[in-house]
Amino acid sequence: METGSKIESLRNMMAKEGIDACLVPGCDAHMSEYTGEHWKSRQWISGFTGSAGTAVITRDDAGLWTDGRYFIQAANQLAGSGIRLFKMGEPGVPSYEEWLAEVLPQGGCLAVDGTSFSAGAMKTMTDALSDKAATIRSDLDPVGSVWEDRPGIPKDRVFLHDVLYAGRDRREKMVEIRESMKKRGADYYLLSALEEICWLYNIRGNDIPYNPYVTSFAVIGKDTSYLFVDPDKVPEDVLGALAADGVLLSKYTEIYDFIKDIVSPASILFDPEKTNISLVHSIRPSVRKIEAEGLAAPCKAVKNDIEISNIRDCYMKDSVALVRLFKWLKDNVSEKEITEIDVDNKALEFRKELPLFVELSFGTIAAYGDHAAMMHYAPTPENQYTLKPRGFFLLDSGCQFQNGTTDITRTIALGPLTDEEKKDFTLTLKSMIALSTAKFMYGATGSKLDILARMPMWEHGLDYKCGSGHGLGYFSGVHEGPQRFSMKPNNAVLEKGMTITDEPGVYKEGMYGIRTENTLLIVEDETTQCGTFMRFEDLCFLPIDRSAILAEMLSTAERTWINRYHSQVYDKLSVYLDEEHQVWLKAETESI
Amino acid sequence: METGSKIESLRNMMAKEGIDACLVPGCDAHMSEYTGEHWKSRQWISGFTGSAGTAVITRDDAGLWTDGRYFIQAANQLAGSGIRLFKMGEPGVPSYEEWLAEVLPQGGCLAVDGTSFSAGAMKTMTDALSDKAATIRSDLDPVGSVWEDRPGIPKDRVFLHDVLYAGRDRREKMVEIRESMKKRGADYYLLSALEEICWLYNIRGNDIPYNPYVTSFAVIGKDTSYLFVDPDKVPEDVLGALAADGVLLSKYTEIYDFIKDIVSPASILFDPEKTNISLVHSIRPSVRKIEAEGLAAPCKAVKNDIEISNIRDCYMKDSVALVRLFKWLKDNVSEKEITEIDVDNKALEFRKELPLFVELSFGTIAAYGDHAAMMHYAPTPENQYTLKPRGFFLLDSGCQFQNGTTDITRTIALGPLTDEEKKDFTLTLKSMIALSTAKFMYGATGSKLDILARMPMWEHGLDYKCGSGHGLGYFSGVHEGPQRFSMKPNNAVLEKGMTITDEPGVYKEGMYGIRTENTLLIVEDETTQCGTFMRFEDLCFLPIDRSAILAEMLSTAERTWINRYHSQVYDKLSVYLDEEHQVWLKAETESI
Repeated sequence: METGSKIESLRNMMAKEGIDACLVPGCDAHMSEYTGEHWKSRQWISGFTGSAGTAVITRDDAGLWTDGRYFIQAANQLAGSGIRLFKMGEPGVPSYEEWLAEVLPQGGCLAVDGTSFSAGAMKTMTDALSDKAATIRSDLDPVGSVWEDRPGIPKDRVFLHDVLYAGRDRREKMVEIRESMKKRGADYYLLSALEEICWLYNIRGNDIPYNPYVTSFAVIGKDTSYLFVDPDKVPEDVLGALAADGVLLSKYTEIYDFIKDIVSPASILFDPEKTNISLVHSIRPSVRKIEAEGLAAPCKAVKNDIEISNIRDCYMKDSVALVRLFKWLKDNVSEKEITEIDVDNKALEFRKELPLFVELSFGTIAAYGDHAAMMHYAPTPENQYTLKPRGFFLLDSGCQFQNGTTDITRTIALGPLTDEEKKDFTLTLKSMIALSTAKFMYGATGSKLDILARMPMWEHGLDYKCGSGHGLGYFSGVHEGPQRFSMKPNNAVLEKGMTITDEPGVYKEGMYGIRTENTLLIVEDETTQCGTFMRFEDLCFLPIDRSAILAEMLSTAERTWINRYHSQVYDKLSVYLDEEHQVWLKAETESI
Repeated sequence: METGSKIESLRNMMAKEGIDACLVPGCDAHMSEYTGEHWKSRQWISGFTGSAGTAVITRDDAGLWTDGRYFIQAANQLAGSGIRLFKMGEPGVPSYEEWLAEVLPQGGCLAVDGTSFSAGAMKTMTDALSDKAATIRSDLDPVGSVWEDRPGIPKDRVFLHDVLYAGRDRREKMVEIRESMKKRGADYYLLSALEEICWLYNIRGNDIPYNPYVTSFAVIGKDTSYLFVDPDKVPEDVLGALAADGVLLSKYTEIYDFIKDIVSPASILFDPEKTNISLVHSIRPSVRKIEAEGLAAPCKAVKNDIEISNIRDCYMKDSVALVRLFKWLKDNVSEKEITEIDVDNKALEFRKELPLFVELSFGTIAAYGDHAAMMHYAPTPENQYTLKPRGFFLLDSGCQFQNGTTDITRTIALGPLTDEEKKDFTLTLKSMIALSTAKFMYGATGSKLDILARMPMWEHGLDYKCGSGHGLGYFSGVHEGPQRFSMKPNNAVLEKGMTITDEPGVYKEGMYGIRTENTLLIVEDETTQCGTFMRFEDLCFLPIDRSAILAEMLSTAERTWINRYHSQVYDKLSVYLDEEHQVWLKAETESI
């Protein structure tokens, strides 16, 4: 079915139901950015495959909103579809709420699937349409009603995440959560975010590629706790372990009735940004709603000592694999025909050998030349390039290990570079160093520090249309907050023990893309009369291609940083390498 | 009357009225930080004389909340008063809303004078007390009811601000405002902020020391506009000029009835942060309220070309006076007995000679030694120091000219300095340069850029407990936004034509204080494929004491900056100086 006819059948339904506009979010019932096939309504209706985006279809117009990571990809995938691209965050571009407030007729009707639209988003939408006397229907699933061959809800098996790797058992985590609930006066805490549920109960699954989540809801009561999950998915050992810790199981879809059955006097705490509006509508009016940022997310974001030690181990393993890959690539690019997918496959081959490897943590971005200008490019057999012994190749990839999650980007020179390429590579390095060496006052958020990475870029009239870094899960999603480096407001204080990526880049459409990405651990630095200061520690040690660096553009401090970093890279990795790879690594980490 | 007995009489009134807590803001009916004597309720009840602060008196406890500028001063002034100091923004210190939510009894009663409490603050308070089932009374003036010898509302005469200096006439300004009103669907626009009213109507007054405001309200209708002001204050020429442009006059206190008389269908736009809650309560429920950030503030903040040219002239004049002052001071400090107030007087003497001088723009901060650790210190005959030929002297001062407002701080060495003093002086310079040389993407706010000034400080475990800079009025208040450099969230995009101070500092209690303050003009830099970039231009040229700079701590770029800046200082100022002062200035601006 072509995009055109899909939209036509949606519009027929809209005409029948008296709906003026349909909003189609790209998330699942848990507000996940990456979802199972069942929930890819926005991808199905629009053809845009990026992980973030919202479509709006009116009777005679259609738009898709996405962020800077996907501007180029979305423009390509929407071409000829009749769907206009709205570049979020660009000057003068309305949000979808503002656009709807403009185009929706007075007293009109907007429909959105309430199970994949958050209570927070609904509030924003309701406010935006307050002058329209509009009706917002969330009781039907517009795209679902016309999507005939829609895949089912994922059925993969649940497994336990060993406390040996998790560092803390579920009882201990539940005690901590119940203490937070008590402080807020909450009788029940409703969890919708899959990563929080998996973290809390020390369970994992295979429902979503790259994201070892279990499609489920959870409720923590004062004494009892519940997991709402398809019972066919839960094997005996998991059942037993959960039961032993007082976790009761119910069917996945029973969450709505469970919430309806809670009667006053009672209070339910939930995060309006992570809880779907259908679920919130299930709460009886007499039950007190406590809206708060998730209680589990901040506990989960601060890694315990066992997790931190394992994350270091994961980056070491993964870096060894990538040293092997980059040597192989640099050695062979002039000799053999190597495509982007060949590199992807080779990387997987090396990584599969690593202890405790489970799967990749996201679709590998293996991008040569101008493909790398698309921040989230993924090669396909049809569009992929064969690599040439010149210019840049960008590899952004990572692994799910049972003892951690990695995410690393390096851009390497496959041969001669232009001066502009070297200049932009060096600027990217300066930006990355600026963040990673920042000493900052406790209380600062990633949205305060983000600008530090941008300053070297801005000085040269450059900018990247995305954040400078994101939090990471632990054998969990590769993008997990609440901390992030971003110009967008963010209240998450950077706490000791959090991990965050540092990944500025230069993206020149039709030319090339450069990104260098390390992962940082937040640690305490010193406490003075002015307060407590924090800094970062590098978790990832992998060469940064010195052949692309213009040393004269670096300050003394920056040059010292890169030389010290490279000397650590050699010291840490060489012990795991054979002599041939040691020699190669030695040369790649020479002082500049 | 002692603070203790004042609080006692307030508590007697509270007992009689069944009030559990009184909130005493420090502002007037227009939310001004600096006010006439009539509105200094918080100062009267607490003894704390700072420009920003809020007191809360309960039946058995009392607290005062102020910001980092005033921590030291407030601690001194509150000592022995029974009022506890709450240092706003310090970790673990509750806001007054949080504290009241803690201490107010269930179903208790809080009273606040509704004419000096904004609608925005009332909303925050109401939300904070939502679990308390509390009553908030805003219909009485708690401190006013026990303040026997309270001064009256200011009666000073209004005068016209010549369009020759203002750059735009009031008709033109009203056209611009009415266009904004139309876009927002507003029939009326209620202005409470004195600086906005004075700017809009090109009037000035003498109601508040240093702030040439007229105590008034204004309303702009679709065709007619109104000024609410004591008619005794308005001379014939002002009356005539306003009438000629269609501005009708009413009595100051009639604003409340005027608002009550507006009947549906109608809409009133106002800024909830700048409009007192009594005024908002006067709006009939059937009239549509449009809450928005002030329409006048952003127009006013962007200076027109005539204003910008005049501001440059003002800084030139003022710098010439300060060169004379600093030469006099350095020449005489070892020879004569010079006190802080002597310097203040001498500065005024030089400034009074300047063309178009009206008054100072704020109480001069003339602070020697540890006095300068108090950011907003003002010398008194009792507490002032006699200057010694060693250590730092800080002078933060400025003027109201008919053609602009200045604000300059320099910290100068009166003799030998310690290594720590030099290091901190140089860090302050590095911080100031970091902000002033920033090139940034259009769309950035002062709260994004603020951190640039802090990074050199944080690197050394230092911080200052205030913003890095503020917007300035034009022959108006010296602190006028909406733009400011601050860690606090601020949505005001830094627009071309805005002016803002750049004033980081090091404050060491009991030791010394250092601040260097320039004023910057925001200009466009370049537009690239990534967007439009902005930068700053210096408006103020006055030597920065080179004898206190540790040149080895400066980067090459910073050293280039200071030498280029000093060469401009000499070129711009020397033409206005006699030979003796030229020679002195030459030495003060030598390359380092």
